[in-house]
Amino acid sequence: MSAHASRTASSAEQAVGDVDAYMASLGLAARAAASQMRRAVTADKNGALRAMADHLRRHRGEILAANERDLARGRDSGLDAALLDRLALDDGRLDAMVEGLLQVAALPDPVGEIDGMRMRPSGIQVGQMRVPIGVIGIIYESRPNVTLEAASLCLKSGNACILRGGSEARDSNAAISTCIREGLRDVGLPESAVQVVATTDRAAVGRLIAMPEYVDVIIPRGGKSLIERITREARVPVIKHLDGVCHVYIDATADPEKALAIAINAKTQRYGTCNTMETLLVDAPLAESLLPRLAAAYAEHGVELRGCERTCRMLRDATPASEADWEAEYLAPVLAIRVVDGMDAAIAHIERYGSHHTDAIVTEHYGLARRFMTEVDSSSVMVNASTRFADGFEYGLGAEIGVSTDKLHARGPVGLEGLTTRKYVVLGDGQVRG
Amino acid sequence: MSAHASRTASSAEQAVGDVDAYMASLGLAARAAASQMRRAVTADKNGALRAMADHLRRHRGEILAANERDLARGRDSGLDAALLDRLALDDGRLDAMVEGLLQVAALPDPVGEIDGMRMRPSGIQVGQMRVPIGVIGIIYESRPNVTLEAASLCLKSGNACILRGGSEARDSNAAISTCIREGLRDVGLPESAVQVVATTDRAAVGRLIAMPEYVDVIIPRGGKSLIERITREARVPVIKHLDGVCHVYIDATADPEKALAIAINAKTQRYGTCNTMETLLVDAPLAESLLPRLAAAYAEHGVELRGCERTCRMLRDATPASEADWEAEYLAPVLAIRVVDGMDAAIAHIERYGSHHTDAIVTEHYGLARRFMTEVDSSSVMVNASTRFADGFEYGLGAEIGVSTDKLHARGPVGLEGLTTRKYVVLGDGQVRG
Repeated sequence: MSAHASRTASSAEQAVGDVDAYMASLGLAARAAASQMRRAVTADKNGALRAMADHLRRHRGEILAANERDLARGRDSGLDAALLDRLALDDGRLDAMVEGLLQVAALPDPVGEIDGMRMRPSGIQVGQMRVPIGVIGIIYESRPNVTLEAASLCLKSGNACILRGGSEARDSNAAISTCIREGLRDVGLPESAVQVVATTDRAAVGRLIAMPEYVDVIIPRGGKSLIERITREARVPVIKHLDGVCHVYIDATADPEKALAIAINAKTQRYGTCNTMETLLVDAPLAESLLPRLAAAYAEHGVELRGCERTCRMLRDATPASEADWEAEYLAPVLAIRVVDGMDAAIAHIERYGSHHTDAIVTEHYGLARRFMTEVDSSSVMVNASTRFADGFEYGLGAEIGVSTDKLHARGPVGLEGLTTRKYVVLGDGQVRG
Repeated sequence: MSAHASRTASSAEQAVGDVDAYMASLGLAARAAASQMRRAVTADKNGALRAMADHLRRHRGEILAANERDLARGRDSGLDAALLDRLALDDGRLDAMVEGLLQVAALPDPVGEIDGMRMRPSGIQVGQMRVPIGVIGIIYESRPNVTLEAASLCLKSGNACILRGGSEARDSNAAISTCIREGLRDVGLPESAVQVVATTDRAAVGRLIAMPEYVDVIIPRGGKSLIERITREARVPVIKHLDGVCHVYIDATADPEKALAIAINAKTQRYGTCNTMETLLVDAPLAESLLPRLAAAYAEHGVELRGCERTCRMLRDATPASEADWEAEYLAPVLAIRVVDGMDAAIAHIERYGSHHTDAIVTEHYGLARRFMTEVDSSSVMVNASTRFADGFEYGLGAEIGVSTDKLHARGPVGLEGLTTRKYVVLGDGQVRG
């Protein structure tokens, strides 16, 4: 067993006596690291990311062996196939993780940017400087690559982070975190800038979200019930992602070919993502001609259709939708369809049943497009584009720590900028207030 | 009794049977109003503000009479002089309130501004549009002018708001809210865009901060204990303002005349404000020559000095500071003084004892100024300027709903922009994701 593997194993199995004291010690170390990370220059942060990539490549064998232990334990304890798949690492996934690190290293550093510097009548100059938030707590489930992704984004944005992954992935996460620590050490950045919680005790999560003295924000990544619980119990701000009940509204003024392409893509390009369309709204004048063509295309993809009364009259294969269907985030090849009378009815439906994630209109009418953009209160509002574009990479953020369904701080896809905040900087020459 | 006065009285005394049901009805009405306010054009919002100013002028007599009732009740119940002063309205204060409305009407409307619109490789264009947050709950204490100030800023930024003032000011607030409602009605905006909670039952606050389905954010304005309680119990995000333990650090490289002017102004220009300096840090090489001159100036203002050991050796009139003094927000003519050895020691002190509100360095050294700006993690960081400049008006925000000591969403003085958020807008021409 190499030194690396033995460190990994001992950290994964670390006995943590008093969870409260243990979490406080992580918090204290993170605070200290944050104040060093705030000053870290871009070259060192990028150097650490590239060093981590090297360590990942070099310790590939140990990481895969650790992952194999997690998988074996998962199989023994009866994890289902989907969970085991999310947990599994292989050469391809490791390559992607290495590639991800190098991509984050190549992104521009948001820290230090000063905006809107302006001379005021008093003679002071005032602007806003982008700065790290401080300490970020991230809570996630089985996927071990999140450990690396979260660490790299927090590091690049100058934050310290405390990561709490799923207990299923504990050996994988420990092996990955060894590489992270080694990368930080290589460039002289504090190792406690990235700390992986080494206990699988669930009380650790309860403490992590209730230490405002040490943690500035919590980002939960996982299922809705995890996120709801964390939001309910957190004593610090949470950047959260709840449902994506996304709509496409096809107006009578739409180009039918664009409408078809968008409606098919928004539903079928991937079923399990939050930006997948879950309800299609079709303006009555176009429904008769468009719905049968759409239904034929959906049938090819095996998408089950649940329709309003008018939809069901036009489409034999649609089953009647219930009230619950309008609120459903299927994440599956199922689609709710409703025929509506004009854009105002569509917006009213979106406002009542939607989750304010991503909603699109298909129209060639300038005034309707402009109104839809203004009036629909969602984190992404689109004209003539598939809802599947609501994504940090597609938007050009270069990275994505998640998609926020909150309204404050960060809304929609969250990249490096969402992990920073802005402080005021004032430059004077001896000015005093009169 | 005019119709205005009778409406006012009845609303001030409104019997609210079931507080939960009552607060939910306010929430429901606010949600509906928010969706109309989101679409309101700038001219209507400004028209409502100007109409409110007219109503305030016209109903001056009723408002002052209502205020007199509040004052009489306050005197009977033994409110102290400071509280009674904050509660009192007179012609001058009413004029200032009218003027404030017209100033908000004259500010640029932040809503609808689109930033960073960019063409992506996929052919979609992506940018971010500034939009109202939705429903804002504001909880404040005795000053009735806050009712108008909060209403005008929420209105201008396209939000609906629910205002909960102090029970001492209930008649004044009811009279003012009548003017607000009439102004909204005049231009056809929904009257429930601004709702003043008509019960003094304290349970109303508990409900207001725990209705995420109706309220998007809470802004408490008042003492630290109110804000701490609200933060602890809120089930929605809070934009909060805790202490201002502000520092001025005078480096050995400072221009002594600028240092004197800033240190005197930052402490004595006003004592009770959050951006007043509470601790002065002086670099050792300059202390011997500067401290006696500073002490003489502070003595003229009647400022009590509490110093570290070295300070006390140099200044006879200084009393020894205890550990608690370094953390104190005096809000009074008291100043803690510490002699430190260089900027790093000053920053360490600020980091340990400060409240991350506003901190200034006085120096003529470029490199130190640059480092101080980067390394001090406060909502305002200043070079060669008085901490008293940390203010929405001085910064050019045109208005201020408060000063946030939070890191997320809004940090430092919060103006209209802090009452908005940004959503992504995507313009396409039929693009689908490949």
